[in-house]
Amino acid sequence: MTDVVIAGIGQTKVGELWDISLRDLAFDAIQDAVKDSGGLKPQALFIGNMLAPNLSNQAHLGALIADYAGLAGIEAMTLEAAGASGGAALRQGYLAIASGMLDVALVVGVEKFTDKIGPDVDTALATTSDSDFEAVQGMTPTAQAALLMRRYMHEYQVPRDGFAGFALTAHANGVSNPYAMFRKAIKLETYTKAEMVNEPLNLFDVAPNADGAAALVLTRRELIPTNFAHSLVKISGSASASDTLALHDRKDVLYFETAQLSAGRAMKQAGITLNQINFFEYHDMFSIYAALQLEAVGLAIKGQGWKLAADNEIALKGKIPCATMGGLKARGFAGGATGVYQAVEAAAQLRGPAGTNQIAGAKYGLIQSLGGPASTAVSHILQKLD
Amino acid sequence: MTDVVIAGIGQTKVGELWDISLRDLAFDAIQDAVKDSGGLKPQALFIGNMLAPNLSNQAHLGALIADYAGLAGIEAMTLEAAGASGGAALRQGYLAIASGMLDVALVVGVEKFTDKIGPDVDTALATTSDSDFEAVQGMTPTAQAALLMRRYMHEYQVPRDGFAGFALTAHANGVSNPYAMFRKAIKLETYTKAEMVNEPLNLFDVAPNADGAAALVLTRRELIPTNFAHSLVKISGSASASDTLALHDRKDVLYFETAQLSAGRAMKQAGITLNQINFFEYHDMFSIYAALQLEAVGLAIKGQGWKLAADNEIALKGKIPCATMGGLKARGFAGGATGVYQAVEAAAQLRGPAGTNQIAGAKYGLIQSLGGPASTAVSHILQKLD
Repeated sequence: MTDVVIAGIGQTKVGELWDISLRDLAFDAIQDAVKDSGGLKPQALFIGNMLAPNLSNQAHLGALIADYAGLAGIEAMTLEAAGASGGAALRQGYLAIASGMLDVALVVGVEKFTDKIGPDVDTALATTSDSDFEAVQGMTPTAQAALLMRRYMHEYQVPRDGFAGFALTAHANGVSNPYAMFRKAIKLETYTKAEMVNEPLNLFDVAPNADGAAALVLTRRELIPTNFAHSLVKISGSASASDTLALHDRKDVLYFETAQLSAGRAMKQAGITLNQINFFEYHDMFSIYAALQLEAVGLAIKGQGWKLAADNEIALKGKIPCATMGGLKARGFAGGATGVYQAVEAAAQLRGPAGTNQIAGAKYGLIQSLGGPASTAVSHILQKLD
Repeated sequence: MTDVVIAGIGQTKVGELWDISLRDLAFDAIQDAVKDSGGLKPQALFIGNMLAPNLSNQAHLGALIADYAGLAGIEAMTLEAAGASGGAALRQGYLAIASGMLDVALVVGVEKFTDKIGPDVDTALATTSDSDFEAVQGMTPTAQAALLMRRYMHEYQVPRDGFAGFALTAHANGVSNPYAMFRKAIKLETYTKAEMVNEPLNLFDVAPNADGAAALVLTRRELIPTNFAHSLVKISGSASASDTLALHDRKDVLYFETAQLSAGRAMKQAGITLNQINFFEYHDMFSIYAALQLEAVGLAIKGQGWKLAADNEIALKGKIPCATMGGLKARGFAGGATGVYQAVEAAAQLRGPAGTNQIAGAKYGLIQSLGGPASTAVSHILQKLD
């Protein structure tokens, strides 16, 4: 089968971008990615978006953004899988190129939390959990994560501050990322003294909702000109899996089964084992998610994921660097754009040089995008080609 | 390349189904389609849905429905392209199977207009048009269609009742479809005396919003057992195109360019010409859409689409039968399920026998799903295999 490669990457700064509209955000990222690809002509646009139909009263983003980016006529549609919408868009773009039916596809993640004209953000976010059985009771994704964290602390006798390492690493890595929302390192006492959001989750256990857009140009390897400007990055594994939305339907709430299934399938397709992965872009919407992802993909045994962070093993020079550009915590959680940001950042790492945060000799990166508490997980293996 | 075939079809009745929830609708259609496929095991679920995040406060339908249908673990995501969401889901299911990465995929369209707990239906529907430039002015899709119809009548000197044939044909064909919302034929005077919805659109120029779900099992031809229960239906052409959301951005508002582009690409891929098409399932959300689609795909010259209906040439025994199971007008407009209903109905026609409404000797069917005023169009050619 043909190799699917990332030919172009683009991203906007992440943050509260009050003066940039949804369509302008997408346009900026598209323009950068197409330019970076040497001007490849996209035939299709796969949008990852989570909440625009609610927050901006705007559905039908495919046609809207294709037109606004000067691409009217091309195929365009939106993928939605809650927080994993960006990963889902990447997955569909990958399948479209792999099918041989399309030569060049744009994958764009975009989200606009500010300037909302619909319901409040918590109400909108709650639409991604089980509306009839959880949201209707007042459950929000943050409350759900708090339950998970409390259970984890109880089950494995973990102190609350055992989670500090996730935020410390993310913020340390965000400093050198010009696109990150927060570019300031934090100290342990900043974490320990932070106010509670939803006990036991404090402010630094929760990624900030933010605006942003990221874009990728995908194509087949043989369509890349020989004098291409960048090292090529191949998508050598791609997989997705689903689980219940509601936590009460799970056999084991502390096991992110989809994270395991999708990462396992992606690695199998890539023909690699876990110890060949040089870095891991996880979906640290909440620090407890990061811990559970490390365990599910096999980087830590159950109940020990937090220790990798506590022992500084997820830092840039640790055993398995994570959130290398700041992750969701410091780069910011731009909803359905998140999975595409992960791919853009991983591609930058693999192309090199990625500045101060470069992982030396990186050949394989694992990126994983979650919807809800791993109700959806989409995993990709990106590989540097020689 | 491998042949992608429709191995199973399923559908619920369309209507105001107050006592069936969104997830139950999807489940019923899935169960029927999987049974009809002889029990093939889906690896992926592509949901077509338009408004659940607004009307039912429920996003993240992929994981929700996969779980509820007993398929938790499989890949699952939602495709959105306004009224073309079902067509978009079919397109993605097709690409996934064509890629060779998946063997069996479920494509499910589902929509629930009743039991709404979100905003009113018109507000929700307006999210599919340009929020910043049209919806904000109070423009709804129905008002937009009324403008198109008035312009058409003016430009081509068409009497208002010149559109009656679309509704008459749809309602005549709905009579024998047990899944249709309306199963009663209407007379010309029923049309001419109908109350205005949005002048010049009357009640019979507008398809009714309805609940419903339809499902398809797609696989590769070589995976079908030799003793399979049905004639096989192949997806021999698949294409999609996009245009501006806002009408004021169009060069010619009376030309549905995406309908032409996507149908042309699909026929080219199938290696057929227009005169080989035995029937056309258009997206008759409004009678003016049907007229413009007939013209855009080349079945009538500009300004003459309405005459095909007036001359009874779209009836079951006409030159080009349309809406053979009642279309959106009589079967009902089940939002993002619509494109999947079209495929289910076309597959039933091609397999035969499709009861009273059977098109004799049908070999090729063209189905076309629209989002907004053809801001998105998704076209597929279904072919009966010998």
